[in-house]
Amino acid sequence: MIFLDNASTTKPSEEILSKFIEYQKYYFNASSGYKVSVEENELIDNARVDILKCLGVSCGNFIFTASSSEANNIIINSLVNNNKKSEYIFSEIEHPSVYNLAEKFKQERKIVHFVKTNKDGTINEQDLLNLINENTRFVSLIHVCNETGAICDINNLAKQIKEKNNKVFVHSDGVQAFGKIDVKLNEYIDAYTISSHKIHGLKGVAGFYFKNLSLLKTFIYGGGQEYNIRSGTINTPLILSFKDACNLITEKLEENYNKVKKLNNLIYSHLKDNKNISFNTCVEKSSPYILSFSIIGINAETIMNSLSEKDIFVGLGSACSTKYSGNRILQAMNKSKTEILGNIRISFSEQNTEKEIKEFLKELENIINYLKEKLR
Amino acid sequence: MIFLDNASTTKPSEEILSKFIEYQKYYFNASSGYKVSVEENELIDNARVDILKCLGVSCGNFIFTASSSEANNIIINSLVNNNKKSEYIFSEIEHPSVYNLAEKFKQERKIVHFVKTNKDGTINEQDLLNLINENTRFVSLIHVCNETGAICDINNLAKQIKEKNNKVFVHSDGVQAFGKIDVKLNEYIDAYTISSHKIHGLKGVAGFYFKNLSLLKTFIYGGGQEYNIRSGTINTPLILSFKDACNLITEKLEENYNKVKKLNNLIYSHLKDNKNISFNTCVEKSSPYILSFSIIGINAETIMNSLSEKDIFVGLGSACSTKYSGNRILQAMNKSKTEILGNIRISFSEQNTEKEIKEFLKELENIINYLKEKLR
Repeated sequence: MIFLDNASTTKPSEEILSKFIEYQKYYFNASSGYKVSVEENELIDNARVDILKCLGVSCGNFIFTASSSEANNIIINSLVNNNKKSEYIFSEIEHPSVYNLAEKFKQERKIVHFVKTNKDGTINEQDLLNLINENTRFVSLIHVCNETGAICDINNLAKQIKEKNNKVFVHSDGVQAFGKIDVKLNEYIDAYTISSHKIHGLKGVAGFYFKNLSLLKTFIYGGGQEYNIRSGTINTPLILSFKDACNLITEKLEENYNKVKKLNNLIYSHLKDNKNISFNTCVEKSSPYILSFSIIGINAETIMNSLSEKDIFVGLGSACSTKYSGNRILQAMNKSKTEILGNIRISFSEQNTEKEIKEFLKELENIINYLKEKLR
Repeated sequence: MIFLDNASTTKPSEEILSKFIEYQKYYFNASSGYKVSVEENELIDNARVDILKCLGVSCGNFIFTASSSEANNIIINSLVNNNKKSEYIFSEIEHPSVYNLAEKFKQERKIVHFVKTNKDGTINEQDLLNLINENTRFVSLIHVCNETGAICDINNLAKQIKEKNNKVFVHSDGVQAFGKIDVKLNEYIDAYTISSHKIHGLKGVAGFYFKNLSLLKTFIYGGGQEYNIRSGTINTPLILSFKDACNLITEKLEENYNKVKKLNNLIYSHLKDNKNISFNTCVEKSSPYILSFSIIGINAETIMNSLSEKDIFVGLGSACSTKYSGNRILQAMNKSKTEILGNIRISFSEQNTEKEIKEFLKELENIINYLKEKLR
């Protein structure tokens, strides 16, 4: 089996899984107040500090959630207010957990702006800065686009945003960036979302860095856990395993990056001159973990299914979404309908091998040739 | 170690933990569309049907969440509308994930009624029925109170509520009931919440039965998972292990009930004539899994800490809450301040033994005698 859909989820590492089992000894309710609960609470707080270190920040808070979608919803809902003059800015290339919320606010007649996208898939920085004014309250910029891998220079942009209006709150969804490219948040970033299952951790835990706790609003009412932001019994084993996944991936960042860069380049250099293929990812401006291209004249779903029969799994645009109603991000990049229909997303893990990539390329060519022949 | 705080959380069973590890083979993203994802989706849908069977219902839906607090928040937020005439009814003995939301609605000037509590800890049924009128939109009744174990006859009450106004939506929080007492929901119940970690399953997964999907509102925006109610990558291993925990606990319901009933009776019969102790649980009207009593003249926290030093863990009112600001439920039962301050909650698992209970009783008496001596 060749798994090339690692942006949708990653295989939990054996190490993390065995840590999780070990952590089952902390099965108590961390809110109970007796000594084993107090111990769990201390471990949770240490995990917060560990993860903040991985993000390069020395102050602020880390809030645990069950998913990065929940994290993004908590952050954005906290910042939206009832002031009719407030303006909210989102990139067009946000993940659905940010974008669909922005669309909802637009429907509620709040002032929502979407930043234009460059043809290479990156955010149009000048358009973004032009949108900042005295009424701007919130900006959300995805660090690495989950569809194309396009990187946003969030530290630099956050600084420029605050120079125009230092009251703007800057959030970045770092789910596809953290553990994959260098993430050292500067003081201009107010919130940053990460997820466990995208870095070989287990599903069911994620979280976000948040600079100023007092700005957060309660999202789940109840027992008051997580600073009264999202109630629910603290999941000590899952949280501690997430902390381990963060530490492990941070240690191996450079090594993994170089390995994945090579795998990515193997596909890119092999396909870049193929006249049936058009690249959506601009490799110079993107994370090597994601490579998006379109097979001209063939429906990508057919390719995906044919590869799937050979136990090779690739993505079709955003695999985080249950609906494939066209690809919003490729549309924003001004891609043609043909390019959108033929869109395949390859996403890597350091666990992939050169042998797998060669096998994938061979099968992809076979399938393209077979289908092209059939269509003639 | 003697764990008598099983209403706060239970130890995951070895069987469930090994199932969870086995299910790691389903590490894919269930929304991806290729064959291994499609397979995961089928397993998830089968799990929904299995859990509905455990609840005794043959139609309707089961929605997976990360916690029962989230489940309760989703249900209640879905039913609250902007009609200023709408009335919402909650018992006084609800879990904080229901009660605190009710308090919030009250602050927002919605019409919220709290049903009176009987001295024995049960819901005052007559008061409830008197509150039902043509504007009543929603009623939430906890099936088994997490503080006292008091059982609410939800099937019967739901029927009576609907006889007065068949448009009322009836929700019950079944977290402390499911797998512990007989739960066979009738057609008058519209929603019912259960949790994995209260029945020897893992933390991080819960869910709710919901009769009419079209009444639910989106709680977490994003990729559209869980019928577009709560987006976030589907947690296949955790969900399947939850399904197993539901099946296992349902199979052993009667056997476990009888075992726990004996353990409960061991404490009750031993302490009922002790003049230092006053019972908050009315054992005839309560689940045997919970036994609440007060030690007169001694702060319960002192007792809890002393027992904790002996590796015996008991609850202090609701252990789901991170704040011990008095006990709302004992107040609703008209208990004295002394009774509230001295409140200890024992909650059982079928894994507890008679030997453990005897050891607990011995240590409890030692501590009471020591403290009474000191206070003289």
